[in-house]
Amino acid sequence: MSLERSDTHGTKPTLALAMGDPAGISPELTARLLALDEVRQQARLIVIGDRRILEQGARVAAVDPDVETIGAGDPLPNRIDRPIFVDLANLAPDTVERGVATREGGRFALANYRLALTMGRDARADAVCFTPFNKQAMRLALPSYDDEIGFSSEVVGVDGPASEFNILENVWNARVTSHVRLADVAALITTQRVARALRLTDAAMRAAGFARPRIAVAGLNPHAGDGGNFGREEIDEIAPAVALARQDGIAADGPYSPDTVFLRARGGDFDAVLTMYHDQGQIAMKLMGFDRGVTLLGGFPFPICTPAHGTAYDIAGRGVANIGATRAAVLLAARMVRARAA
Amino acid sequence: MSLERSDTHGTKPTLALAMGDPAGISPELTARLLALDEVRQQARLIVIGDRRILEQGARVAAVDPDVETIGAGDPLPNRIDRPIFVDLANLAPDTVERGVATREGGRFALANYRLALTMGRDARADAVCFTPFNKQAMRLALPSYDDEIGFSSEVVGVDGPASEFNILENVWNARVTSHVRLADVAALITTQRVARALRLTDAAMRAAGFARPRIAVAGLNPHAGDGGNFGREEIDEIAPAVALARQDGIAADGPYSPDTVFLRARGGDFDAVLTMYHDQGQIAMKLMGFDRGVTLLGGFPFPICTPAHGTAYDIAGRGVANIGATRAAVLLAARMVRARAA
Repeated sequence: MSLERSDTHGTKPTLALAMGDPAGISPELTARLLALDEVRQQARLIVIGDRRILEQGARVAAVDPDVETIGAGDPLPNRIDRPIFVDLANLAPDTVERGVATREGGRFALANYRLALTMGRDARADAVCFTPFNKQAMRLALPSYDDEIGFSSEVVGVDGPASEFNILENVWNARVTSHVRLADVAALITTQRVARALRLTDAAMRAAGFARPRIAVAGLNPHAGDGGNFGREEIDEIAPAVALARQDGIAADGPYSPDTVFLRARGGDFDAVLTMYHDQGQIAMKLMGFDRGVTLLGGFPFPICTPAHGTAYDIAGRGVANIGATRAAVLLAARMVRARAA
Repeated sequence: MSLERSDTHGTKPTLALAMGDPAGISPELTARLLALDEVRQQARLIVIGDRRILEQGARVAAVDPDVETIGAGDPLPNRIDRPIFVDLANLAPDTVERGVATREGGRFALANYRLALTMGRDARADAVCFTPFNKQAMRLALPSYDDEIGFSSEVVGVDGPASEFNILENVWNARVTSHVRLADVAALITTQRVARALRLTDAAMRAAGFARPRIAVAGLNPHAGDGGNFGREEIDEIAPAVALARQDGIAADGPYSPDTVFLRARGGDFDAVLTMYHDQGQIAMKLMGFDRGVTLLGGFPFPICTPAHGTAYDIAGRGVANIGATRAAVLLAARMVRARAA
């Protein structure tokens, strides 16, 4: 295959979009996305998957995606007026059972995603997006598959710190620790880690176009420790990290009481909340409607964006899947590419 | 003083309501509450405070509370058609500065609350309510003051486990641990503690009229441990407690992933969520609008209810304070008394 980047796409960011799990709503979301004028205008989309699965999704979504289909070995067309579909011909539609996680489905999504990542790595794409994966299917296809960050780091060859941002409308959420036991969290809250997370968050948000993102830092303990009564991490670790970040010109504030900081962010006081552990942010974001939001993987040489919701096996094939989060993911990726170029 | 309970109040629960901090919205809330027909019909209210502070609140709220005022030493009237105001004459209005926590304000609230609690203890009231306290003022007045549970246990003479429930419309929240360092939480999550919290929650909700409350139990770790990948407390401690509770006829379920369990409760799947630590519940409840909710102290021989919001110093005296949560607190107390009697 030869997918060379071309000058003719002018200022349109080139986004490589991998089709996700075939048994859920990913096929219909991909088809519906390709039919959105706004998306076609904002990005040069290169969608990777199986043309037959796309057509199946198009029938469900009742849209007719106007794409230029090429084979896995074909050169990439220079045109920018029409999305390109790279047909890997890697999944026969009649083998897909809706609502069932399978090894074949996982292999399909992994192959599509791997190609999208290599396009990003080789600067043939400016950003990478994907429609939802099913973790169980991914593990059936690749037992060592842990999560998107691990797999992407391996394919792209990234060694440095990578992290996940959750974005719902005007609120970003980043976290210092993620998939670790709650018992281990407190020991991981060090000035160094919090300061590093603040730098990563600030960098990712500036890359997304924020001139000076206002980042609220959550405390670790109830009432942010209540002045040391219920824990000293706020005083000994978190506050010094905030001070360090501010010295570097980062608009960090806090630590704030974890149970009200999202209310303030939702009200417009902050652009982001840095949380200390997984559920501190996830409880809040999911209640605020994060299924409508976007997940961004940061720490890679290019943006990687995906809708926050999952494969929605329960509504797959019914034509009712909402395109909002997928649309937001693609538009965020395009915005980040333009902000970087500017 | 002689406040004897009388037969003449028939089926109307007798509620002793202590006026809270005078520098915030408590005076206007008390006055507004006394003017609500629904409250007057559902309960025999005995309000405790200073008549001049009540009148100040009535002017702010633009209501004219029709009460029968008695002195601290007067016998309690038998009538049930009109709220009674016990005038302790314990705070001169001209000493109150709005929005400022003072020792005098704390002393006022403590004296009112102490009398209300002793009325509950001595079965002269069926339940106790209070308008918001200011913790700083309480500590100025009584440096050993920790929280409402500690003070109430001391005055009432309760030794057993007491705990706080947060109630927002149809969702109750109870917790296994509360004001402790996050670093200490995991070690406190034992089968015994979780099972005890389930029994307390079930008992409190049955006392509030639920025939068989459906209680969802949150996990401790991200994704409830993901099958043991991020912690084993769900498997080793929480699930056995749920099984024990079910053997006792408690409709407990879980452990569920902490970041989606409140979405399910809000959607009607459960009546209550038992959380493992303070912020797991508080982040969720505050985002869901818990300031409109009610806090219930459980484990006492009578219900103790208060609005979940605070003294709101920022809007005190402007006449804009919302009566909703205070009204809900009083109606819940009345409902619990009736359920107990039935």
